[in-house]
Parts: sequence; structure tokens; C-alpha cells
Amino acid sequence: MRKTVEILDSTLRDGAQGEGISFSVEDKLAVTRLLDGLGVSYIEAGNPGSNPKDLEFFRRAGELKLRHSRLVAFGSTRRKNRPAAEDDNLRALLTAGTEMVSIFGKCWDLHVRDILGTTEEENFAMIGDTVAFLREHGRRVIFDGEHFFDGYQANPAFAMEALASAVKAGAEVLALCDTNGGTFPEDIARITRAVAERFPQVTVGIHTHNDSGLAVANSLAAVEAGAAHVQGTYLGFGERSGNANLSTIIPNLQLKRGYVCIPDSNLPQLTDTARAMAEVANIPLGRGEPYVGASAFAHKAGMHADGVIKNSTSFEHIRPELVGNERRFLMSEISGRTAVLEKIRRYCPDINKESPELTRIMEELKRQELEGYQFEGADGSFELLVRRCLNRIPTYFTLAYYRITGEKPYDVGQSAVATLKVKVGEQYQIAAGEGNGPVNALDRALRSALKEFYPSLNSVHLVDYKVRVMDSRKATAAKVRVLITSADKAGEWTTVGVSDDVIEASWIALSESIEYHLIHTTPETGGKI
Amino acid sequence: MRKTVEILDSTLRDGAQGEGISFSVEDKLAVTRLLDGLGVSYIEAGNPGSNPKDLEFFRRAGELKLRHSRLVAFGSTRRKNRPAAEDDNLRALLTAGTEMVSIFGKCWDLHVRDILGTTEEENFAMIGDTVAFLREHGRRVIFDGEHFFDGYQANPAFAMEALASAVKAGAEVLALCDTNGGTFPEDIARITRAVAERFPQVTVGIHTHNDSGLAVANSLAAVEAGAAHVQGTYLGFGERSGNANLSTIIPNLQLKRGYVCIPDSNLPQLTDTARAMAEVANIPLGRGEPYVGASAFAHKAGMHADGVIKNSTSFEHIRPELVGNERRFLMSEISGRTAVLEKIRRYCPDINKESPELTRIMEELKRQELEGYQFEGADGSFELLVRRCLNRIPTYFTLAYYRITGEKPYDVGQSAVATLKVKVGEQYQIAAGEGNGPVNALDRALRSALKEFYPSLNSVHLVDYKVRVMDSRKATAAKVRVLITSADKAGEWTTVGVSDDVIEASWIALSESIEYHLIHTTPETGGKI
Repeated sequence: MRKTVEILDSTLRDGAQGEGISFSVEDKLAVTRLLDGLGVSYIEAGNPGSNPKDLEFFRRAGELKLRHSRLVAFGSTRRKNRPAAEDDNLRALLTAGTEMVSIFGKCWDLHVRDILGTTEEENFAMIGDTVAFLREHGRRVIFDGEHFFDGYQANPAFAMEALASAVKAGAEVLALCDTNGGTFPEDIARITRAVAERFPQVTVGIHTHNDSGLAVANSLAAVEAGAAHVQGTYLGFGERSGNANLSTIIPNLQLKRGYVCIPDSNLPQLTDTARAMAEVANIPLGRGEPYVGASAFAHKAGMHADGVIKNSTSFEHIRPELVGNERRFLMSEISGRTAVLEKIRRYCPDINKESPELTRIMEELKRQELEGYQFEGADGSFELLVRRCLNRIPTYFTLAYYRITGEKPYDVGQSAVATLKVKVGEQYQIAAGEGNGPVNALDRALRSALKEFYPSLNSVHLVDYKVRVMDSRKATAAKVRVLITSADKAGEWTTVGVSDDVIEASWIALSESIEYHLIHTTPETGGKI
Repeated sequence: MRKTVEILDSTLRDGAQGEGISFSVEDKLAVTRLLDGLGVSYIEAGNPGSNPKDLEFFRRAGELKLRHSRLVAFGSTRRKNRPAAEDDNLRALLTAGTEMVSIFGKCWDLHVRDILGTTEEENFAMIGDTVAFLREHGRRVIFDGEHFFDGYQANPAFAMEALASAVKAGAEVLALCDTNGGTFPEDIARITRAVAERFPQVTVGIHTHNDSGLAVANSLAAVEAGAAHVQGTYLGFGERSGNANLSTIIPNLQLKRGYVCIPDSNLPQLTDTARAMAEVANIPLGRGEPYVGASAFAHKAGMHADGVIKNSTSFEHIRPELVGNERRFLMSEISGRTAVLEKIRRYCPDINKESPELTRIMEELKRQELEGYQFEGADGSFELLVRRCLNRIPTYFTLAYYRITGEKPYDVGQSAVATLKVKVGEQYQIAAGEGNGPVNALDRALRSALKEFYPSLNSVHLVDYKVRVMDSRKATAAKVRVLITSADKAGEWTTVGVSDDVIEASWIALSESIEYHLIHTTPETGGKI
């Protein structure tokens, strides 16, 4: 019989305390849908007492038909020396209308003395009264023991008494918080075990922060010591260095330790959920994020790539498809023939390890990398390189010339103007474009020149533009590498250009981004070659 | 007596396997200087057998006068069924000329069978012969037991025998590698303890990867179990989800567990080293990075900010200044005055905390940061900003206009030409310059225009030029930040420019780099104000 660990996601509450994170009500509804789709037990969605936006969220969340998750409203214990029934924040908490509420209270005597400024007895009464008040109003209560681990280490009797006040009044979960994130796993385990032994009648939970880079390890240590409820945020963001990262903890517990956190059938959604969550939060999802990052199963060293192809367990701790992620072979001078073959299989199924074409491709790859090209992030240009080596690419357009001017100060319009002339079939076309800088102007001129030949270009837009100066010690005469990511209705692709001149490097990446789109959409090739 | 833990930083070797990481030889020298300044024991700097660039690095690194760190060259055991003396890679390893070398060998029987395709006996011989060969050539040897933990769990006798082969031949460090990053702390601790008991005569080391989000915890668990040598990368980047993050591990061990990893007096350099390293690697330093991230001590919740002001231990696990970081209150103006004051003390000793000038500087700093400026890596521009706020800077020249043209193809000379007109005193001067790209052309034109007024400019040269696109989702119309590092006989300085237009951003940074030089050399100011 597998043991269940409840997951409480606090992306919408503790996560929203992260620097640069700000959710609209619509964002919060979107995050709620994502988490419910994944199947976490609880979604801690806000503090209706401190935030009118959160109150509106709970009103509208009532309309969502959640299948797996229960919403939790979050608040503080009553104020000191005031009855719970007269506390505005507690009344606001009830208006959220959730069956579950979580309440935080102080478990560290230092805080009671220095921050709260009251007596130990009043602190225990604040906890007990608040839980009792919520129970009387039909709520089920999670008690968050703030600074529990620091508090226990300073004064174990005090910290335990705070928990006892919550249990006596009817709390059903005791979430032990490492609020400052400074505790180490062995202390987390020891203290969690003590709590689980003292209060066998309730569920013990764990809430950690990542200030020491140990939030995931601390959560696992607590579960091994008896906790059956884990709090965190799905992508790990939150106050300071963030909260425990649930997208790491869930697969760690479920794939490697046999616990059930979410339905097994939902594990392959972990990666897509992470990407969607990052979009809603408007943050980049770290490439290296365990399990769900784009690089989590990316192999660069040739030896690693060879090994994985022979036997995936040789350099992967799990099969990537278990969490909905995928293996990638980064194309670089260190990657071998096997990796390249694996990569081009999709569009060149007829090439094999002995094909002379493969040798040609490998040589071209090395030659271009020596010039400063790097294809690991530029799948689009890599495909074009392969097709060019195989003569499987039509000529969509050629450049006759471009001319750029940039001025400061400038009179009208924008600081840069590009004129260019391209040849399409037997026809020449000249066009001009104006922009914030030379590359922006060139981009506009090129699209303008090509649009009547290739109307589908209207659907292409640039989503990212990156410049890397290589060997930058040569200062302004150094080579630059430009990466451009484009998208159309069918997907995204990245192209690369390298030159001494940032404009020429951008031109190469720009024109390849358009070629890539045309290969995959024009009738001549129909996306196949 | 505090115990010592050796730190081996592999940013330049394992870190370079990270997606998107690519170091030039100059970058590698810069990283070496940073790590030596911090005082790590070992810098694993590359694999001369697999990479001619690394060979050049070792040649030039000989000229660096390292004070704390020893360079380590990295390689593989000899090939199967071939004598060590005939192995090209091993011979290349010797040419690196380092006293220490690290060698990896297989400790998992699955790898020997499926990947290497040889017998157990030959694998042990490969390890022993290689170590012996290196010892004969006067090298000290670190043996990296690849996949040691997976190997031990599959076949403990085999894994131990691999280590024994290395020890018998004279290896002095056994670094146990969790190559796939899938092992949990309790297994790391148990297995490390078994190795430390079996081989008391050598130093046991730990090398972890972060695929399960546990690399830091695993490193700490190994140290508690007897390891006295920790391998990782300073910012945690590396293959897949990266390596153990040394900027987290060092303060965890030294501030919280009493070990000595680097000289105590260098701990306050941890944050600046992280920022500088991120600049060299051209990656953003994660805000939430434990200890060294910009948000690591940033307080957003009002309650947390209040608490920290009353008693810093209430919401901070350590005092930020211990690691050279600083407390920030988000969306509040209390941040920074002390830090800024500290920074400008050198050239404005007369300003104090109450000076109205300080308020003006703080406001200007905020305004410029809002525009996308960042002064952390741009000491030169920061000093100019301060001097401008205090009206302590003469006008050396003003721009009347510049005009840039770029062409492809081009007939003679180079692809870009700049013409510009500047005013110096009452005189106008017009000049032109030609270059590989628009910025290079502009640089030459500006120097040409100013050279007769300020002959000392002949001694100024640009040493580095970096472009970072901000908010890059706006594609080619995004803002760019340009950083330029210049040098003269007296030293190096960095200036920054921000604009929608890469040329304008470069102009700002270029003209400030020249102003900075002039302030410090022209008779009017004599380097003082």
C-alpha cells in the first residue's frame, strides 16, 4: 500500500511574495486551473484579509469546477488582546467561503517577545481562540507554525505548546515552517519526528524556504520523518530565495520513493505545467530546473550523448517522458555522429551512420563552429545546415545589397533606416524600413520586400533576439553571435548568425528565420524534403 | 580546531558543459583570477586532450601568479587495451604542466559492460595504469569515480575495487561522483561513510549533480559522513541541471557548520564573485540564488520588513554582510544609502549619510536603474553618475552628431563607416572612422576626432565589449545594455550605456569610457575633484 503525501501549493500566496511576481485575478484563475489539472490536494490562494484582489479571486473561483484540488484561504491568528469574533481579518477569511483555511501563528519565543510584544500565554490563546473560532464556523484548519524549527531549537517546550494550542482547538494539519530557510536536513528530520510522535492524531506538514539551497532536501527529510503534507510553490519562487520547489519534490517522492502526491497518470504533465505556469507568472523557466527544465535531459559532451544512446540510464536519472520532458542532444563540436543522426532522423530518415552525407554534415558543422557558430540553441539553423549539405533546399530569395544608416540626433521617424534589394526568382524587389536600431530597421525592410511573394510571412513574428560577443577582449572589433527566435502558428524556431559586424550577423539569423518558415509552409516542399 | 574542506571548482570544465555556456581563453583566465581571489583550493580548468583551446589556456595560465588556488587539468583514464604511455590524451594532460591532475574512471559495472565494452579486469587496469603513469611523471592525482553511487548500489564490490585500483596506484583524493544526479542524501551519506572507512589513508571527495534538486544537500551529507573535498561549480551551472552550487555550499559549511573552505576574511567576497562570474559567463545571476542572489535578503511582505528592522534574525538566516550581500526592502526607499556611501567614500570623502547630495545621487541611481541601467558591473559609469550629481566633472567634449552607414556587399575597406562631429571647448572637429561593424567604426572616429586635444587617449584601449538584450521578448526592438571595459597604464574601468538602439547604447558607453580616462589624467582634475 503506497503512502499518500498531500501537496499544498502556495504559488498564489507565498509565491506572490517573490520579487518581480505579480498576479492579476485572471492569472490566479489560470494558475488554479493548472494546479487542479495536475491534481495537487490544496491550492493556497491568498489572504482575503490583506488584499481585496484575493477576495475577488475567491468569489470567482467558486465558478471553477475543480476536480482534484481544494482551495485554501490563508490568514493570521487574531490580534493580541482582542476577541477572535471582532477581528476583521478573520471575518474576511470566512468570506472566502473555503472549507479549508490555513492560519499562521508564532512558535518562536523571540518573535513573541521582540516582534509581537506580548506574553507567552496570550500567544497560545491567540492560536487556540483563532482555531476554535474557525472550527465553530465550520472550517477545517491547517495550522502553520511560523519559525517552528528556529523556535524549537531556541525553546522546544514553547514551540510544542504553540502546536498543542492549535491541536486542542481542532486543527487537523500542523505545518512546520522553516520560515527563514536556515535549517539543515538532519535538524528538520529530528524535530519533525518529535512532533509526529507527540501529535499522532493529526497530519504533520512541512513548509520550507530555500535560503540555504536545501528546501527540497528538507521537505524530503521531513516526509521520511513522518510528515504527510508538503507545502511549497510549483516553480519554487517566493520571498527571498523562494519556497520549496514542488515540481522537483513531487517526482522525487513519487518516482523515487513510491509516495502518491498526484494521480500517477498526471506525472507526464509536470513539464507542461511548469512551462505554462512560467508563462502566467511572466518569468523565464530556468533551463536547468530539475525534471522540468529545457536542459534537464540535454546532453552536450559527446561521451554522454553516446552513452545515453547506448543505454539511457547511463547518463539520465529517470526517463524524461515520465515527467513529460524530452531528451535533447546539443549540437556542438563535442557531439558525435550518433547524436547528429538521432537529431536529423525526423527530416532525413534515409541517412544512416555510413552515409557519406553524414560525413559532409559533420565536417560542415565543425567548420562553422570554428567560425563561432553554435547550434545547440539554434535548431532552425541546424536544420538549414543539414538541408544545405544535402542540396535539399530551394532558393527563396537572395540579397542584392542592403544599406543601413544610423544617426544621432535624428530629425523625424526613428534612429535607423535600412534599404535593401532582394531577388526572388527572376524579379528584383527594393524596400525600406525604419527602426529603433539598425537590426530592427533591416527586419522591417526584409519583410516588406518579401511580403507579396510570400504572404504567409505575415504570420511570422520575432519572439526573442540575443547578442553574444565572442572573444570579447578584442573589444568592438570582436565577433558577435546573434540568436533570433521566431514563431508562426505551427511553432517556434531559433536561428543563428555570426560575423564581425553585428548587422551582418543579424542579417544571417533574420534571413534564415524566414527561410525556415518558408521550407515548412511553401507548397514546393510542403514541410518535407 | 576547525576542520578544513578542500573546494575544487569545475566551472571551467564541468560548468562549460552547461547549455549556453562557452568560454574563450580570456574568459577562462578571468574566471581563474576570480576563484583564486576567493581562495578555493583547486581550479579544474579543462581537458587539454580534448580541446586545443584548453591547451592554450594552460600555457597562458602559467603567467598568472595565483596566490591561493592550484590549477588542475582533467582527463580520462587510458583507452582500453592500449598502454598509458601511448595514449595521446594522457600525453596532452602532461603538457598542461599542472602539479595536480584529475582523472575519471568507471565505477559502475553496467557502464563497463554496455558503454565501454570491456572486462572488469581491464577497467581496473585502465584506472591503475593511468594513475601510475601520472605518478611516474610527477603528478599528484585526484581520481573521479564516475557514477560511483549508482555503481555502488548496483555492485558494491565492483565499485570499491575500482577505487582500490586508484588508491593502490597512488591517487590521493577519491572524488565520489553522483554523475546522473539521482541519488538521495541518506544514500550519499551511507556510501561515503563506507568509502571513508575503507580508505582512511586518502582524502574522500564528493561531486554531485542537481538533477533531483539535491546537489547541495548531497554535498553536505557527504561532508558529515567524512568527505573533506567538495567539487562543484561556483554558480551551479553544468551538464543538464548543473553541478553542486559552491556559492551555496561554501557559506553553508563555513558559516553554519564551522568548516574552513576558504579564508574567513574572503567570505564577504562571495556575492561580488558571483556577480562577476555571471558577467564573464554572460548569464543572468538568478535573483533567488541562496546567499548571493539579489533577492536573497530582499523583503517584500510588509510584516517581514518590519520584523527585520526590529530584529534581523526574525526573517534572515544570516546577516547579509557576512557574504557581501545586502538587505533590500522592495518598493521602499530605505535601501542602499549606506551601501552607496561606502562605495563613493574613495572619491567623495566629504559626503555623509545626511548630505543632501546623497539623496540626489540615490534618486538619480533609481531613475537610471528604472531605465535599464545597472551599475554593479560598471564602476566607471557609477563614478561619473556621482560626479555629475555633484557637478564635479568638466565638459571634455560634446557630440554634435554622428552618422553611421553599413553595407553588404561593400566595395573597398570595411563594412561600416562612421562620421561624427564633436565640440571641444569652442572648437568643432569632424572625423571619420571605418570598422568591422558600426560600433567599431564609431569608436575609431571618436578617437580620431579627440586625439589632438587629448593625446593621452593614445594609451587607452578597449579590452571588452558586451551586449545584453533586456526584455528580449520584444525581439529586435528590445532595449540593449552595452558594457565596455577600457584600460590605460593606470588600470581598467567599465562603463555602461542603455538604449533601444545598440549603436546609441554603445555611443554612451564609449564616450563615458573616454570621459573616465580624462577625469583621471587631465591636469584640470589631476585625478582628484
